[in-house]
Amino acid sequence: MALQIGFLVFPRIQQLDLTGPHEVFASLPDATVHLIWKTLEPVVSSNGLVLTPNMTYGDCPPLDVICIPGGSGVTPLLEDRDTIEFVRKQADSARYVTSVCTGSLLLGAAGLLHGRRATTHWVSHGFLEPLGAIPVHGRVVQDGNLITGGGVTAGIDFALSVAAELAGQQEAQAIQLELEYAPAPPFDAGSPQTAPRSVVDLVKQQSAQEFAKRERIVSRIATTRAGQ
Amino acid sequence: MALQIGFLVFPRIQQLDLTGPHEVFASLPDATVHLIWKTLEPVVSSNGLVLTPNMTYGDCPPLDVICIPGGSGVTPLLEDRDTIEFVRKQADSARYVTSVCTGSLLLGAAGLLHGRRATTHWVSHGFLEPLGAIPVHGRVVQDGNLITGGGVTAGIDFALSVAAELAGQQEAQAIQLELEYAPAPPFDAGSPQTAPRSVVDLVKQQSAQEFAKRERIVSRIATTRAGQ
Repeated sequence: MALQIGFLVFPRIQQLDLTGPHEVFASLPDATVHLIWKTLEPVVSSNGLVLTPNMTYGDCPPLDVICIPGGSGVTPLLEDRDTIEFVRKQADSARYVTSVCTGSLLLGAAGLLHGRRATTHWVSHGFLEPLGAIPVHGRVVQDGNLITGGGVTAGIDFALSVAAELAGQQEAQAIQLELEYAPAPPFDAGSPQTAPRSVVDLVKQQSAQEFAKRERIVSRIATTRAGQ
Repeated sequence: MALQIGFLVFPRIQQLDLTGPHEVFASLPDATVHLIWKTLEPVVSSNGLVLTPNMTYGDCPPLDVICIPGGSGVTPLLEDRDTIEFVRKQADSARYVTSVCTGSLLLGAAGLLHGRRATTHWVSHGFLEPLGAIPVHGRVVQDGNLITGGGVTAGIDFALSVAAELAGQQEAQAIQLELEYAPAPPFDAGSPQTAPRSVVDLVKQQSAQEFAKRERIVSRIATTRAGQ
C-alpha cells in the first residue's frame, strides 16, 4: 500500500510550511498525501492563499507520517480539543511524528514533546521548554521518530531528510535535483544570528501581538499540566 | 495604491514555483497578490495540490509585476493564444516581467525574451536559445525589467531579489528572517554539477516524456518564427 502522509491544514496556516514539504513528499514514488482539517471547506492561509483540505479528522486513515505546519493559525489550535485528540491518536501509530515551524508547539500541546529534543521558528523557540521539550536550535532535529523542522523554509531541508528516511538517499537526492534545490539567498539575513539587528527588531515587532497571544496560551497549558 | 502582483496559475503547475514567491510577495507591506487563470475554478498542480485562482485574464488590472511559474502544465500554454495574448498585454505595461522555472519558456513563446539574458529549470535550459533568449545559468537572472529564476526552489531566491527591488533591502531581509531562510540542504544534489551522475540520469529519465513533448512545441514555435 502507498505511504500515507498527512499534513494538518487550517485557517491562517503559513502556507509555505506546508507547500514546501508537500512538493517533496508528493514526489515520492509511492505516496498519498492528505491535507487534513475538520471539514473539506477551503481555508485561507496567513498570507491569503486558499488551500483546500481533502480529508477530515473523522475519515483519515492511519498515517505513516503526520506533519503539523505552523503559522498564526496554530495558536488557537493549542487548546482545540478535537485537533489535539486527532493529533494524539495519529501520533500513537505513525512511523514519524513531524512538524515544520510553529507546528511543533501543537505537538507540545498534545503532550508529544515531553523530554524530547525539538525545534521551532526562532521567534517562538522559548515556548518549547514550557511545553515539555528539550529545545534545540537547528533546521532539522530528530529524536527517535520525532522530526521537527525550524521556521518556514526549513521545511524543505526537513522534508528532504524525511524523504531519505522513507525512500532512501538516492530518491531524496533525485527530488532535490528535480526541485533544483541549491539555494543561494541574495542576503545573509535568514537567522537572527546573521541578520542586521534592525531587521531582527523589525521582525520581533511585527510578531509581538501574535507572540503575546501565544505566550498566554502556552503559560495556561504549562500551569494546567504542572497541577496534574 | 497597493502594488499589483500577479501569478499565472494553471493545471499541472509546479506549485512550489508559485507558493515560494507568493509567501515572499504577500509579505510585502503594501501588495495585492493575484492568482490569474482563464476561470476561477480550482486547478490541480502537477503534484496534486489544489490551488484556487482569484482573478481572470479579462478582469485583471494592469500589473506592476507579472510572474509566470513553471511545471508540466506550461507546455500546452506555449501555443495557447489567449494566454500568450494576456501575458504580452500585461508585460507591455508591467514594471517587472518575471518567471520561475520553466515559466520563462512561456515568456519566450510570447516573444518577450528576444535578445535578453534569461534562465530556466536546468532540464529545459536548452529551450531558451530557440525561443530567442541569451541563455544564462543562475538562480536569478536580471536583464533590465526582465527577472527570471531557475528551477522551482530558485523561486525563493528570485522573490527575495524582486522584493528588494520593490521595497528595499531592509524589507526583503525582514521577509527572509521571518521565513527563516538560512537554507541547509541535507545533500549536495541540488544541481546537475554537484549531484551524483546516477541521480542526474534518474531525473532526466523521469523528465524524458515531458521533455520530448516540449521539444516538439518549441521547435514548431522556432520554425514559425524563422519563417516570419
